[in-house]
Amino acid sequence: MTASTPLDPGSVTPAAVVAVRHALDGRWSALRDEIRARDDFASLRVAPGTDSETYRDRVWEMLGRLAADGHALHGFPASVGGHGDIGGSVVSFEMLAFADLSLQVKSGVQWGLFGGAIQALGNPEQHARYLPSVMDLSLPGCFGMTETGHGSDVQSVHTTATYDPATDEFVIDTPTESARKDYIGNAARDGRMAALFVQLFTAPAGEEPQRYGVHAILVPLRDEDGTVLPGVEITDDGHKEGLNGVDNGRLAFHGVRVPRENLLDRYGTVAADGSYSSSIESENRRFFTMLGALVRGRISVSGSAVGAAMLALTIAVRYGEVRRQFSAPGGDGEIAILDYLAHQRKLLPLLARTYALRFAQNELVEMLHDIQTTREAGGDVDEKRQRELESRAAGIKALSTWNATEVIQVCREACGGQGYLSENRLGALRTDTDVFTTFEGDNTVLLQLVAKGLISGYADDFGHLDTLGTIRFVADQVLDSVAERTSLHSLAERLRGAAGGDEDEVLDSSWQIKLLDDREEHTLDSLVRRLRPARGKGVGADRAFEIFNNAQDHLLRAARSHLDGLVLDAFNRACESRTDPAARTLMRQVCDLYALSVIEDDKGWFLEHGRISASRAKAVTAEVNRLCQGLRPHARALIDAFGIPESWIGAPIAVGDEARRQDEASAHAHADAGAATS
Amino acid sequence: MTASTPLDPGSVTPAAVVAVRHALDGRWSALRDEIRARDDFASLRVAPGTDSETYRDRVWEMLGRLAADGHALHGFPASVGGHGDIGGSVVSFEMLAFADLSLQVKSGVQWGLFGGAIQALGNPEQHARYLPSVMDLSLPGCFGMTETGHGSDVQSVHTTATYDPATDEFVIDTPTESARKDYIGNAARDGRMAALFVQLFTAPAGEEPQRYGVHAILVPLRDEDGTVLPGVEITDDGHKEGLNGVDNGRLAFHGVRVPRENLLDRYGTVAADGSYSSSIESENRRFFTMLGALVRGRISVSGSAVGAAMLALTIAVRYGEVRRQFSAPGGDGEIAILDYLAHQRKLLPLLARTYALRFAQNELVEMLHDIQTTREAGGDVDEKRQRELESRAAGIKALSTWNATEVIQVCREACGGQGYLSENRLGALRTDTDVFTTFEGDNTVLLQLVAKGLISGYADDFGHLDTLGTIRFVADQVLDSVAERTSLHSLAERLRGAAGGDEDEVLDSSWQIKLLDDREEHTLDSLVRRLRPARGKGVGADRAFEIFNNAQDHLLRAARSHLDGLVLDAFNRACESRTDPAARTLMRQVCDLYALSVIEDDKGWFLEHGRISASRAKAVTAEVNRLCQGLRPHARALIDAFGIPESWIGAPIAVGDEARRQDEASAHAHADAGAATS
Repeated sequence: MTASTPLDPGSVTPAAVVAVRHALDGRWSALRDEIRARDDFASLRVAPGTDSETYRDRVWEMLGRLAADGHALHGFPASVGGHGDIGGSVVSFEMLAFADLSLQVKSGVQWGLFGGAIQALGNPEQHARYLPSVMDLSLPGCFGMTETGHGSDVQSVHTTATYDPATDEFVIDTPTESARKDYIGNAARDGRMAALFVQLFTAPAGEEPQRYGVHAILVPLRDEDGTVLPGVEITDDGHKEGLNGVDNGRLAFHGVRVPRENLLDRYGTVAADGSYSSSIESENRRFFTMLGALVRGRISVSGSAVGAAMLALTIAVRYGEVRRQFSAPGGDGEIAILDYLAHQRKLLPLLARTYALRFAQNELVEMLHDIQTTREAGGDVDEKRQRELESRAAGIKALSTWNATEVIQVCREACGGQGYLSENRLGALRTDTDVFTTFEGDNTVLLQLVAKGLISGYADDFGHLDTLGTIRFVADQVLDSVAERTSLHSLAERLRGAAGGDEDEVLDSSWQIKLLDDREEHTLDSLVRRLRPARGKGVGADRAFEIFNNAQDHLLRAARSHLDGLVLDAFNRACESRTDPAARTLMRQVCDLYALSVIEDDKGWFLEHGRISASRAKAVTAEVNRLCQGLRPHARALIDAFGIPESWIGAPIAVGDEARRQDEASAHAHADAGAATS
Repeated sequence: MTASTPLDPGSVTPAAVVAVRHALDGRWSALRDEIRARDDFASLRVAPGTDSETYRDRVWEMLGRLAADGHALHGFPASVGGHGDIGGSVVSFEMLAFADLSLQVKSGVQWGLFGGAIQALGNPEQHARYLPSVMDLSLPGCFGMTETGHGSDVQSVHTTATYDPATDEFVIDTPTESARKDYIGNAARDGRMAALFVQLFTAPAGEEPQRYGVHAILVPLRDEDGTVLPGVEITDDGHKEGLNGVDNGRLAFHGVRVPRENLLDRYGTVAADGSYSSSIESENRRFFTMLGALVRGRISVSGSAVGAAMLALTIAVRYGEVRRQFSAPGGDGEIAILDYLAHQRKLLPLLARTYALRFAQNELVEMLHDIQTTREAGGDVDEKRQRELESRAAGIKALSTWNATEVIQVCREACGGQGYLSENRLGALRTDTDVFTTFEGDNTVLLQLVAKGLISGYADDFGHLDTLGTIRFVADQVLDSVAERTSLHSLAERLRGAAGGDEDEVLDSSWQIKLLDDREEHTLDSLVRRLRPARGKGVGADRAFEIFNNAQDHLLRAARSHLDGLVLDAFNRACESRTDPAARTLMRQVCDLYALSVIEDDKGWFLEHGRISASRAKAVTAEVNRLCQGLRPHARALIDAFGIPESWIGAPIAVGDEARRQDEASAHAHADAGAATS
């Protein structure tokens, strides 16, 4: 075909919308429908402008309601009364984004992070002892990893736990002000215990304690009455840009003693005599294994970001259909703003990207579920697959949280002054999700993780290497195979790709995939070549860092290129899985819009590297416009397929009086047509 | 030269920093220094998390302090006791961005919009009667233009003022709910009068009232005690994403009568017998003349956005210098995050763009000042110059407010969790300035104004033409001259530009300018060709709209291309104006970074249109990296040159304990080097 053929509006029947919704819902669609049916869900929202103390009260109360309803049971093992449905726990967490994001994050701290740490790092006795009261909220807790001085580099935290064989206890200390645990959710008000990440020191009696790296340990913070325990110092982080229903605080410890059995010791334990043992010898590897076991938190944040973007798009697209402004010259009424190409260009490529990330997120949750379910059942999980999961979690989390920030911002602007009123929700969606791009891993740092994974080719040693080690490893061992791979793509083949029939191929999905694959491969190849000089034996640390640092933008590009391809693959698979022809055609067009937007956004690279011709680059832009216009009549169907219940949307401009008033304004404009625009 | 030569850190002396500051300060640097010396300025900030009612109280109280200090006097004419310093009024408004943005916007509503409307649209008697009490705040007022149903298209407002010759009064009515004045600052609580924009109806007694288009009229809202007057209906817009110290509300009028003399009648008046007269015959032209007289508001918002971006960059760059994370492999300490290329790439091109916009804004303020001062003195202002002012105001406002949104967001992310804490100010800066992109003109609509101005070539008839008229006008009258201009640039000349010596020219500012000029010209030429089919006599309104709408992205691109060139020119002029060699060299490098970032961001277009070769495109990217690294040691000097007094910065991570703690963390990291990263 030479250009996209707009779908006849009549062909997108309610059944087709349901089919698209099922695709978006993915494997846990039944659970999603169950949650959608909750008639009290909208009441979980807190009114805008509520002061922080009241907001925290309300969130605490609502968290109790969720606990009473068994909301927390999904992800915990059957052995302690949970449902053992790991994917379901991510999905049910994500759905809370439609209620109140403070409530969501607070629930994530309690059940995902605090409970999750006990589940992932603790032993069966600890599961039995703590998890029931974590689930029913009788033991509210914190996840104490980040410190004031160490956020991204959590392997370098300074809090210490030193074993004292004389009393069979660990002594917890915060050596400096910058070693305070910081931004800790549940700390400022409600938390009674923390899963604390500390540098572990121990030795048999009489010997000098040795450091064994980062471990997690349970440390009580408050007693049953909420009184802070001796030696514990808690300060409130104060007002934040968003999420003010969550009580973030700073924790410091001064000689706090906890029993030895409080160490979450699945990956490393201390005997009564102070001797240390672990199934994983390398400290580095042990640390990354523990982090890997906690990957669910990152994947949950990613899901929440996709949900927030879906809600913002639902509001902005609905408003764009009723809001009218300016008359066509000589026309007889005002034009709906979504009929302007500029408005379509703002919203529809972002809608397409949000579809794409939804599908990539669904695959990620399935992968997490399958891997962790296998492991919980005692099965073996291939280490490569675990690393692939961690890499995808890092990458998809970065893309989906940046996507949310951009989508919500654009939606706010697309709704003008109305978008600025809190009742229309976009402001709080933006401020509450803003921190997603830097918590659970700073996005830029996460993309570097992805890239390092790529250049080390998922070799067994990954995770054991620091930056310099990675560079040297790559240079020594991977370079040859990369060089081999490159030679497969001759110049002739590249030119063929670049010179094709311009417009007729841009809608060919195999061309789109090939283009993204080619970019990924070239970017990675050239990155490895660029890092090569760091391998020389005479190269000092400063020079090696300089080589690495000079290529940092290249490294980030390699990660993004890889992820774009991975996301497109997920979208294509989702299209293929549909049997309803209208649903499939519609999704295919949204997928084309996604793929061509990615290509358009980076067309400088594709042109610069001879991957597309100038005329094809222009054809891509023209086709993006055509797709926007062709999808315009289906914009409502596309957001209806998100399946956000009417009562959850909340924004008056999208569902209430304001939407009605816009229609009224339009009616008046028709009546007065011409009066003001002579 | 083949690549930028990094400036020796020692060469950027305090005197050089002062020289750069003077360049940034522009013509009103003395006034800026005067305001900087205010020792109470920091106390004008309101604590984060303050509830809306208290916040409004505090802002009202602080506004009173500003009034008592004579803050409002700058912009008002000497005839009523003001200083008659129009540029100074914009600059002093802008400086309030460093205190509290709610206070700034509230002051802008009172003195800029309400007072400005009386000043620009009223007669000398009205000036004498109202302006003194506007300045001293004894008459708080509103600017009632936007309606619920009409924001961008204010020519179509529905509120009416109908003259009743029997009583010599106007009767004000809000015919529908969508005709309510909406988002009106000062309305919900404090305003006692509104400058209301209405459709004016009048006729000599006995005849049917005729509509004469939009006019402004003063309508009392509340009595001296603050009681709302009969027939006036005021509702509170409620909580907003930001600016909650400003009392925005909705106004509706039901048969409210005001004396005839309340009409602000500089551009159109009604005699006692109901006959209408105006010096401007065309209703359309009259409307745009009135809007043009109000252009100061848009320019003030633009200045405020530049100020907000400067503050955010000051905070993020200072934090980037003290915050350290990760050790270099084999190195002996943690690395300041601003030493990472990825971090420089985030902040420094935005710093360069903010410099560029500061210079463009300075020129805009000078132009406004010169034009309006001439006019107030009774002098003649060339209509082309007035239109040029309006076009620049629209365009620079769009660029600088979008810049602020992006800069503050990136700075927030660059400061991680600290950036999310309200005490560090980035959250409120973001939410308070967010609405800037859609108030005082929606940015997308403003860019269309710019583009329409370009394609009509500032011909005398501009302003009289609706969209279709503009298209036809262009097609008929401008096409020939455009075609002529295009032929001057032969293909050979273009290829010469594209094929040059790759790396050696990218730092040549004449090459940079030529490239941007060339893009502007080509974009405009091709746009006009694309719109040509709309000129046919047989072309109906629907088809003409379709042609226009299909080219809307092209239209926006034309506007942006034009503005990029204009901003670069302003930066180059600012560099040329410096005599201090280090200051000049430093500014030159920042200017190169700005120009090359613009080219890099749009390199797809330059490649697609054969304006640069692939190797030069790569050279541009390489040079952007080199400039980032070369400017890194001067980052602090570059933000110091913004001249934001220490006590105004406020954010603890940039000036207070937190900055100290980061240094401490760094010291500890040095001491422990290697401990945690074996």
